[in-house]
This record gives sequence, structure tokens and C-alpha cells, in this order.
Amino acid sequence: MSEYQGYAGESLQWLKKNNVKVGNSIKITADGLTNSGIIMPRQESGDDKHLVLKLGSGYNVPIKINEIQDHQLISSPEIKPKQDQERKEDPELPKILLLGTGGTIASKVDYRTGAVTPALTASDLYETVPELRDIANFDTEVLFSEYSENLQPDHWTKIAEKLHSLADSDYKGILIAHGTDTMHYTSAFLSFALAGFPIPVALVGSQRSSDRASSDAAINLTAASNFLVKSNTNGVFLVMHHDEKQTVACHLGTKVRKNHTSKREAFETMGGDPAFIIVEGEIKKNMQGDFFEDENYNPRMKIDTKVSLVKYHPGYDPQLIENLIQTGCKAIIFEGTGLGHVGRTMYDMIKKAKENDLFLGMTSQCGDGRINMNVYESGRDLLELGITPLKNMTPETSLVKAMWALGNSKNVVEMKDLMEEEIASEF
Amino acid sequence: MSEYQGYAGESLQWLKKNNVKVGNSIKITADGLTNSGIIMPRQESGDDKHLVLKLGSGYNVPIKINEIQDHQLISSPEIKPKQDQERKEDPELPKILLLGTGGTIASKVDYRTGAVTPALTASDLYETVPELRDIANFDTEVLFSEYSENLQPDHWTKIAEKLHSLADSDYKGILIAHGTDTMHYTSAFLSFALAGFPIPVALVGSQRSSDRASSDAAINLTAASNFLVKSNTNGVFLVMHHDEKQTVACHLGTKVRKNHTSKREAFETMGGDPAFIIVEGEIKKNMQGDFFEDENYNPRMKIDTKVSLVKYHPGYDPQLIENLIQTGCKAIIFEGTGLGHVGRTMYDMIKKAKENDLFLGMTSQCGDGRINMNVYESGRDLLELGITPLKNMTPETSLVKAMWALGNSKNVVEMKDLMEEEIASEF
Repeated sequence: MSEYQGYAGESLQWLKKNNVKVGNSIKITADGLTNSGIIMPRQESGDDKHLVLKLGSGYNVPIKINEIQDHQLISSPEIKPKQDQERKEDPELPKILLLGTGGTIASKVDYRTGAVTPALTASDLYETVPELRDIANFDTEVLFSEYSENLQPDHWTKIAEKLHSLADSDYKGILIAHGTDTMHYTSAFLSFALAGFPIPVALVGSQRSSDRASSDAAINLTAASNFLVKSNTNGVFLVMHHDEKQTVACHLGTKVRKNHTSKREAFETMGGDPAFIIVEGEIKKNMQGDFFEDENYNPRMKIDTKVSLVKYHPGYDPQLIENLIQTGCKAIIFEGTGLGHVGRTMYDMIKKAKENDLFLGMTSQCGDGRINMNVYESGRDLLELGITPLKNMTPETSLVKAMWALGNSKNVVEMKDLMEEEIASEF
Repeated sequence: MSEYQGYAGESLQWLKKNNVKVGNSIKITADGLTNSGIIMPRQESGDDKHLVLKLGSGYNVPIKINEIQDHQLISSPEIKPKQDQERKEDPELPKILLLGTGGTIASKVDYRTGAVTPALTASDLYETVPELRDIANFDTEVLFSEYSENLQPDHWTKIAEKLHSLADSDYKGILIAHGTDTMHYTSAFLSFALAGFPIPVALVGSQRSSDRASSDAAINLTAASNFLVKSNTNGVFLVMHHDEKQTVACHLGTKVRKNHTSKREAFETMGGDPAFIIVEGEIKKNMQGDFFEDENYNPRMKIDTKVSLVKYHPGYDPQLIENLIQTGCKAIIFEGTGLGHVGRTMYDMIKKAKENDLFLGMTSQCGDGRINMNVYESGRDLLELGITPLKNMTPETSLVKAMWALGNSKNVVEMKDLMEEEIASEF
């Protein structure tokens, strides 16, 4: 069955009748349009009315079976010419390093078996997204291969140490292929840990796997590579599909959230515009003002995860704060309501946490907008109890910054100073 | 100083020079435009370049001091005619009950002293927002007076019991004045507890207090009253400012979130459009499809708050789940990553929670989009461990529904059934 991986019903019938298999190179005319490409495997959950064709541009298109007028088989995988992989690098082009951490983006689907495997040799990469070859010469390295829901702060540290070892290298930029679930947590950590890193870093993922017609893998990889080569900035960015016009957004690593479970344009810069927009390979600066105040490279890569995120809600049991204190928690980031509030049922436990020398920071569960704890009585009460307002930082960035600040300070006073100091354009 | 409450600098100087005081009725021509209204007190944090004038429409406008060309004092508060409050009710109009729970919306600023006090007698209400008089005859009752960050599930139950007692009344609709911080939690509870309630209920708040020129109190109250009188629907809605064209949105009580800390259009229907849009008093149905499947009134008002919301993140300490079990928690709503995932470091504790007969539900921290636990290995693992996917419910609505379902079921099997059954258009 692997020759027809994922196909069923009408589309399977068409493939069998015409002796066309997954992985075949084919020219197809349908509904008046002629396309050349490779027949892609499909997910079992797909419909049975379409073939999926991967074009030379790396973009996938669906072809309606009942609109096919003509087709011509060009090659089968066995006889596919391999000249692409043997082509020499162009010494005039800059160098990019691609680090693989896992996720859909760092995989390719084997056209014959349908198995998802890491696609991370340079030649595999060129084969998957041929236009990359015109942008840069790529080196690739697999750091690990995990869906990002399984990444932990230890993984962040490994990525940071790898990047740190490359601070003096001749790479024009570094791409990190990453699962999308927790990509914004990783980008926040790298932003703080490697503040002022001299080479631009772009985390890139894809929301739709490459065997789906709507995959954003190729467009995101291409745009991120163009960004690294052309932008002449430094800092840590997250580069993902932006809108239906096939533009790609480049978000500051500390200001971005995943705001949709499934759509390609899932990531948004909170409280502002993306730093850059990439339109057909051109980089447009989009954000007002400058990005990073401190130009000096200041690596501080330690981390201490004894930080809890507490989302307040009516009915929140204050006893849970006491449990956190007893578990050895050293800092709490509150996701408060509105402008930065929690109910007064929490006040006694907040006092107790302060007596135990915990750092207490306030963010808002509203997602967007700035904390202001001076407007209402509740906010002023909480300031008096010693809670630090974290301005317009997202709860996720605040949590990651707190783990980083706790790891890189000697006591709660130093930690508070770090939390209030702008490190990587997080405010 | 209370005669000039909140005014300073240039604006204070102008008031003193012209013997105009807060609360005075005045006609002012500035920059070619003439407005009549009442001088409002201001917040201390306001600038000193403007007066704020409350117009007859209930809307506040700022007047630039250096653009004032002419003014004419009409009355001071002492001699202000009181005929408004003595005017008889119009027996042709429908009846609306306004229940006060607190928050900015349910307050008026005393024009002479600047003190914020509950404005909840019918006559106070008509004085604050005169156009309400043309929509309905209002009865008013103060249930409590709390900013909504201090509201707890006990308060929800009190509101539900009050509404339940009115199921057979001749009110055309019921307005609940409510603080905005947790208004969407309250609307979710009332939606579940009073499914099929025969009279429409509108929770209404304001993001900006009525002494600010940009206050949305009057427009929200007016729109919500029009909605109750004209819409001919039932169910629980949340009615708030929608966009800069002064439209107001009417959101289903189970599908709405506060997504901005401070702007007036802070509330959004997640994953769809608001149910109705109110434009200059006209009610436009905006949502496709019907609202509530079950037309029979089915009050189930119990609640059990032994439910925890767990937002997963890299570095989450699984030990905290064990603490929840030991604290007597009976249900956990996970705010997972992406399509509904948590890291595999959590699996052992999830097993333990299942062995202890907890209900475990999955939502997404992405805010928007639907859970799908069939796409990736992590999701399938979690389904196998017994986690219930909660489709496209927000984490907040899921939490409230879990408290409600736990209170109104005998065991975890019954609770799971209730969680998966559509009660109030929550999916």
C-alpha cells in the first residue's frame, strides 16, 4: 500500500488505472492548467477527490481528479536523476546553519514509504525546498528530534549553548527548525539568554505538514532564509506564515504568541506589529522604532525552573499558593484579570509568599494590552503587598524570563531588578 | 476642592476664572461647535488641557480649553430642575429589571463631591443615561457591590437564584451591571445554570468610568436595553462596545473572552462572530445558525469549585498535579499547547489522576481554534490516558462548566456526559 500512501476512493482508482505512484514525477493538465511536480503521499484523513502535487517551487497544490485532462509520467523514484544533490555550492553565497530540533518542519515524508523522517542533510533540504539553494549554502545539524510539546528548559539550554559556540563563526544567520506548540517559549528564552548575540537567529516551524496541499513549510523556510541573509539585524526572531497573500511575518522572540490551534497564520506579535514582513523574498521593516537597545553580546544561559504560572479565576483556591511555597517554588507569575488583579481572597497567601521571599509578578490573562495596577483599588492593594507589575509582557514571556532571571541572580532583589530591566525588547 | 474635582493647571484656571464648577449645566462653543451638557469631574491622572462635558445623549466629550470661544452657564447643581426624576413611567413601554453587582458601570460619580456611588435607583439611572427612559420602564435592585475580580462562585449562585425567581415575571429582559474583569466567567455560569431561561439576560459593563470622556457606560447600557426589548431571543449574553463606529456587540455568554486590558472593544466572541451587533438602537443578527438548541427551561444551579485550571508549559512540575489530587481536587481542565497537548513528562501524573477518578479535560492556550487530539502522537497518547477533548470551548468556559457539571452530577461518568453535551451553545 505504501506506493499509494494515504490515497483512497476516486483518487486511488485514478492512480492505479494510470500506473502512477507516490513519488513519481509527473506533468498534469487539469482545468486548463498544466503543472509539473511530484505526487505526494496524503494523510489518511484527507478526502479522496484530489491528488497532491509538490511543485518545483516547493509549494504543494491539490489537483481535482475529475478535472484532469491529460498527464505525462516523467520519472519514477527509482530512475529519478540525482544531479540536484551533486551540484556544487556557490562560493559567492552566504552560509546559513540549520539546526533541527524536531516538529513537522524538520521532517520530510519519504515519497515511497510515507514515513516521516528528519530531512536535514543539506541535499535533503535542497531536494525538499529547491529555491533555498539560490539564497545560501546550508550546513545542517540535528540537535534533537522532538515535537515541541515535549521540549523542556534543558533543551532550551542545549540550543543556547550550541548558538553560543557559534558567536564567532562565519554564518550569516542561524535557522532553528522547531515544532510550533512551544516555539514562542523557546524564542523567549534564547532572546534573554543570548541578548546581543551577533548573528540573527530565526526559529521556523510549520502548521501544516508537507504532505498537505496547504503546507507552509517551504514558504516559511524560504522567507526565514531570506530574512537571515538580507535583514542586517541581529536578535532572535520567530518566522511564520502571516496572511493569505503568502506573506511571512518575522516576530520579535519575546513578543510573540501562538494564538490559533491550527491555522497557518497562528502566530501574532502581541500589542504591536511584527518586526518585519517578508513579501516574495523582500524584507520590509514593519515595526516602528529600534529593536534592541543593547548591542553588546551578554550571554547568561543559566535557568532555574522553580517558577509557577498561576492563572487567577473566581473560585481559585488560595491554598494552592501555600502548596507552591511548600514545594520550593521561588517565584510566581500571576495571570491576573483585567489590568492586573486577583481577588482579595488571595491577599493572605500573597503576604505569606512575600514572607517566604518569593518573587511575585503580575501579568494579564487578557492576552493583549498593558498592566496598570494604579487605576483600581485591587491593583493598588496588590502593589502594596509587593507584587511587581510586568507591564505589557505576555504571561508566557514573563514565565520564561522569571526562570532565566532566577537562574542568573543571587537573590530576590537582583531577580526583581532583572525582571524590570529591558533585556531583549520584551516591553 | 470638590467643586473642581480632578481639574488642574489650565483647565482649573479656566473654571475658576469663569466661576464654573463640576456639576454645572453649561452651553459651550469651542472650535466652531456648540455643545450643552454637564461639567464632569475628572480623574487625577487626566491631562489639564480639557474639560469633560456629559451631553444629553449620555455620551461624554472632551472640550479643549484653548479652543473655547464662548460659554453660557445654564444652571448649577443646587438649582438644577428635577422634573426628570418626577416624570411618570410610560405604561406602553416594556419593563426591564437592572440588577447591580458592582463595577464601574453600576456607579455614578457625584458631580459635586466626585465620590463614586452606586447609581441604581431608577431615577438615578434616568439621570445618568436619559435615553433609557424611551426604551423601557426600569426597576433596579442592588445584589451586591463588588469589583468583579472579587466575585466568587457564591456570587454567581446568588445571581442565578435571583434570576430563577423571576422566570415567571413580566420583565421583558434583565440587565446585570457587572465589572468587566470576570464578566465572562459569570456569563458562562449563568448560561449553564439557567439553560433555556425564558427571559433574555444581558450582562453589561464599562471599560472606562463615566468621568472619562471616552466612557462606554451610557452606550453599552442603552444598547443592552434595546437588545432586551427588541431581539425576541432568550439566553444569556454579554453586551459591550464593539468598534470605533460606536457599534455594540452582543456575545453568547459561553463563547466570549476579555482579550484586552483597557480598550473599550475588549471583549470578543472566540472562533466566530458576535451573536448580534447593535447599531444606533437597531439589532442586527450577526451569527449564522440558531443559538440555543434546547428551548425548555432547565435550571441546575449547584456548583462545586473543586476544579483546577492547569496551564501547561515547558518546565511545568508534574508534582503539582499530585498536590492537586491530595488537596481534594476532583477535576482538572488543562490549557494545553497547540491542538491540545502536554509534554510526556506529565503522563505518569495523568495516569495517577485517572486512578483517583478525577475528570480530566483538554483545552488550548492558543485562545482561538479547535482542539484536535487525533493529529499528533501526543494527542493520541493523551486520549488513551483518558483525557476528554473539550472541542472549541475556551479554557475559562470549560473551567466554569466543569464546576457546574461537578456540582450537578453524581459521579465522574455523569460529569463527563454533561461536559460533552451541548448545554448553552458552548461548542
